[in-house]
Amino acid sequence: MRRRRTAAATLVAILAAATLGCTDGDRSVAAGGAESADLVITNATVVTMDADFRVIEGGAIAIAGSRIAAVGGAEVATRYAAKETIDAGGDIVMPGMVNTHTHASMTMFRGLGDDIPDRLRRFIFPLEAMVVDADNVYKGALLGAVEMVLSGATTFVDMYYFEDAVARAAKAVGMRAVVGETVIGFPAPDADEAYGGLAYARRFIAEWADDELVTPALAPHAPYTLDKEHLEEVAVAARELDVPVLVHLSETQAEIDKIDEEFGMSPVEYLDSVGLLDDRLVAAHCIFVDADDIELLRERRVGVSHNIVSNVKAGKGIAPVLEMLAAGLDVGLGTDGPMSGNTLDLMGLLGYTAKLHKLAKLDRRVMPARDVVMMATIGGARAIDMDDRIGSLEAGKLADLVIVDKDSVNMIPMYDVYAALAYAASSHDVRTVIIHGRQVMRDRRMLTVDVEQIKRDVRVLTDRIAEEAAKL
Amino acid sequence: MRRRRTAAATLVAILAAATLGCTDGDRSVAAGGAESADLVITNATVVTMDADFRVIEGGAIAIAGSRIAAVGGAEVATRYAAKETIDAGGDIVMPGMVNTHTHASMTMFRGLGDDIPDRLRRFIFPLEAMVVDADNVYKGALLGAVEMVLSGATTFVDMYYFEDAVARAAKAVGMRAVVGETVIGFPAPDADEAYGGLAYARRFIAEWADDELVTPALAPHAPYTLDKEHLEEVAVAARELDVPVLVHLSETQAEIDKIDEEFGMSPVEYLDSVGLLDDRLVAAHCIFVDADDIELLRERRVGVSHNIVSNVKAGKGIAPVLEMLAAGLDVGLGTDGPMSGNTLDLMGLLGYTAKLHKLAKLDRRVMPARDVVMMATIGGARAIDMDDRIGSLEAGKLADLVIVDKDSVNMIPMYDVYAALAYAASSHDVRTVIIHGRQVMRDRRMLTVDVEQIKRDVRVLTDRIAEEAAKL
Repeated sequence: MRRRRTAAATLVAILAAATLGCTDGDRSVAAGGAESADLVITNATVVTMDADFRVIEGGAIAIAGSRIAAVGGAEVATRYAAKETIDAGGDIVMPGMVNTHTHASMTMFRGLGDDIPDRLRRFIFPLEAMVVDADNVYKGALLGAVEMVLSGATTFVDMYYFEDAVARAAKAVGMRAVVGETVIGFPAPDADEAYGGLAYARRFIAEWADDELVTPALAPHAPYTLDKEHLEEVAVAARELDVPVLVHLSETQAEIDKIDEEFGMSPVEYLDSVGLLDDRLVAAHCIFVDADDIELLRERRVGVSHNIVSNVKAGKGIAPVLEMLAAGLDVGLGTDGPMSGNTLDLMGLLGYTAKLHKLAKLDRRVMPARDVVMMATIGGARAIDMDDRIGSLEAGKLADLVIVDKDSVNMIPMYDVYAALAYAASSHDVRTVIIHGRQVMRDRRMLTVDVEQIKRDVRVLTDRIAEEAAKL
Repeated sequence: MRRRRTAAATLVAILAAATLGCTDGDRSVAAGGAESADLVITNATVVTMDADFRVIEGGAIAIAGSRIAAVGGAEVATRYAAKETIDAGGDIVMPGMVNTHTHASMTMFRGLGDDIPDRLRRFIFPLEAMVVDADNVYKGALLGAVEMVLSGATTFVDMYYFEDAVARAAKAVGMRAVVGETVIGFPAPDADEAYGGLAYARRFIAEWADDELVTPALAPHAPYTLDKEHLEEVAVAARELDVPVLVHLSETQAEIDKIDEEFGMSPVEYLDSVGLLDDRLVAAHCIFVDADDIELLRERRVGVSHNIVSNVKAGKGIAPVLEMLAAGLDVGLGTDGPMSGNTLDLMGLLGYTAKLHKLAKLDRRVMPARDVVMMATIGGARAIDMDDRIGSLEAGKLADLVIVDKDSVNMIPMYDVYAALAYAASSHDVRTVIIHGRQVMRDRRMLTVDVEQIKRDVRVLTDRIAEEAAKL
């Protein structure tokens, strides 16, 4: 991560310098006429999510290759000779959203055994043992990735088995992804032996080390599903391989009790003691954390993934994210897997996040709309340590952005763009998605994969799962 | 209401008897060949919401005029000679949803002053005084009604000013509506004097008494905004005019405190004391009610409208709906107005309702998917005392139904139809909406009104509101 980040940061600096003139209204166009761009988006309500939270009415964005060349007013359009122009017609252009925690392949189990308490042991474990293989993980991840693009995500952070298949699915759809191979203390669908995921991960990480879209990662499942020795081994391997680490952390009261009983610590303190608590860690959930945990997470620069729909649907509770943000923690939003949250809808998550924190504090003022848009974009990018490349619309960053319809019935009127996004927009209002400079979806049509074929493939699989589930 | 219900119940019985043969697989077709129908929907996953919660795979529905002639398996299609057939292709056909509480015209204020505490006094009251007239109420209600149809509602219960304009908007869109003219203890946009709404309501009720889609109603605003004498007067008028009564009840702690201080009662007990607590009352919110209140509401057969998105976004709390359902109360779902909940999306409300009660009890089992679908359909119909005519798909009932896409990416797979509706469906998955036997929307296209014209008209209005709001 750090090595790659340094290289990328240098590139950002070079590109930013090269294009600075184009974002500065006082500078003239370089002698010799317009600069070239692959795509210019004009007539946009640009929600930059930069440090000043600039919103540019009648704005424009120039994209050259995989990067944003310039962001500014209408003058940007005149300064660039573009191969293609999209007139946004006043629509919102915002950074692509970052789904900081999911298990995309679990689309295959969506809606199975909802509302019952023992679904994990009654349905999921036996069914996973039966049907989870590389092919099915690929098919499930394809459907999940399409669903994420359709609702405005451009990057997702995934944790499951056969993560090389998830990586291939992300590439096929054209999404940016951090994909973490699960390491867990018992045999898994892709490992006959306990902790077999670690060897699997080493092969997988070597294979995907230099991909422009996919960042391979290690995913120790949770503090209570690996022993101490193996958590330490993962920490050493992560430093050696220079990869991100994904974990479920402080998700249930049972976890808190178990770690306290065995080690006399909170799960956060425990992960620190095994060497996992650092800036390469992305910790999902963090529901049951106290002020000391939050301070320790902040000191160690851990990124937090807040999965409120999943946490609430499971009756677990609401993570103290207002306190985390006040402490300066980097918090992003996550859908969790579709068995937990059922959809992979980042846009819908904005409203849940804003409203449920108001409920938790019985105060309509807290968690305002802009803060949830922040977490879904630059906050998520910071949580996964990619904010030097993605998460805001700024010259030099990678061109990951989405166009959101301002003309749908539910988006009228639009007195405040953040309120419209957080409280009124639906996933379907996402019209066009650009990732790494490439148009992945245009006017709701996926351009990279055959969606009908993906649906057919998943249905064949899920018909079989339904048959097996009926016997359980 | 009661008079009309009796007549309607008789009609239901006659029609049910006439069509019984068509819903009974063992009976043969009447001699003389197929019966006639205007529309038959075939190849549907029919979610009847009848007393047995029947779900019919490969089902069919025959519609004759404004009513459902038959509901059953594929044989229904062969028994009817239909003018038109819709092949649902396996899609879900469910009862049209009932939005039991809204202020549809407030679309004009959607997203204005969100996240600030004093928005009502700072923005809404002055802006309402400035722009709310019959014409603007009509335009706002048109946009709101379209949004409701787009998300699967076929009936809405409205409370605002100039309710005759809301009635006209409902008719134009083709929606069923209960529209309550506000009576309040100070001058209002449609009444120069306090309580002027009562005289307005009498005119309006006389004018709309016999409409097949619109039921006029009285809407005393809240226990604390009318004095006791006028609450009593409304109760007498409601019985005299035989109309439903809509009220905001037990919505804030301030209301509880005020009524307790003045009358030594809970707001529920207070409304009973003025004669308003009966089966014609639809009480919105009921957040701060105790076991005695719930028992009194049940005894008096009051319908409750549960508005969880609005209540949560305002930081008010979660109404004890699990306790209400356990007590046998009739509870429906409501979006509240678009200044409160921002959207009028009934489909999205299903997920919020299911998940937030799990959070409130920290138990994933409570408020299962079927219960929220129930509240959105037959529960809402019971709450507004129309369950003899709408709320379920049964022969003899009015043909208010919606077709929901089972093929959208987020709806795959569909192991359980209720879980798919409550946790995965989005408003956009509603494809076709039929109200009173009439196709109001077909494949996402509104057939009754010019949506682009409605948007243009609202934008002219809201541009003006934005200008005025900027000065406040």
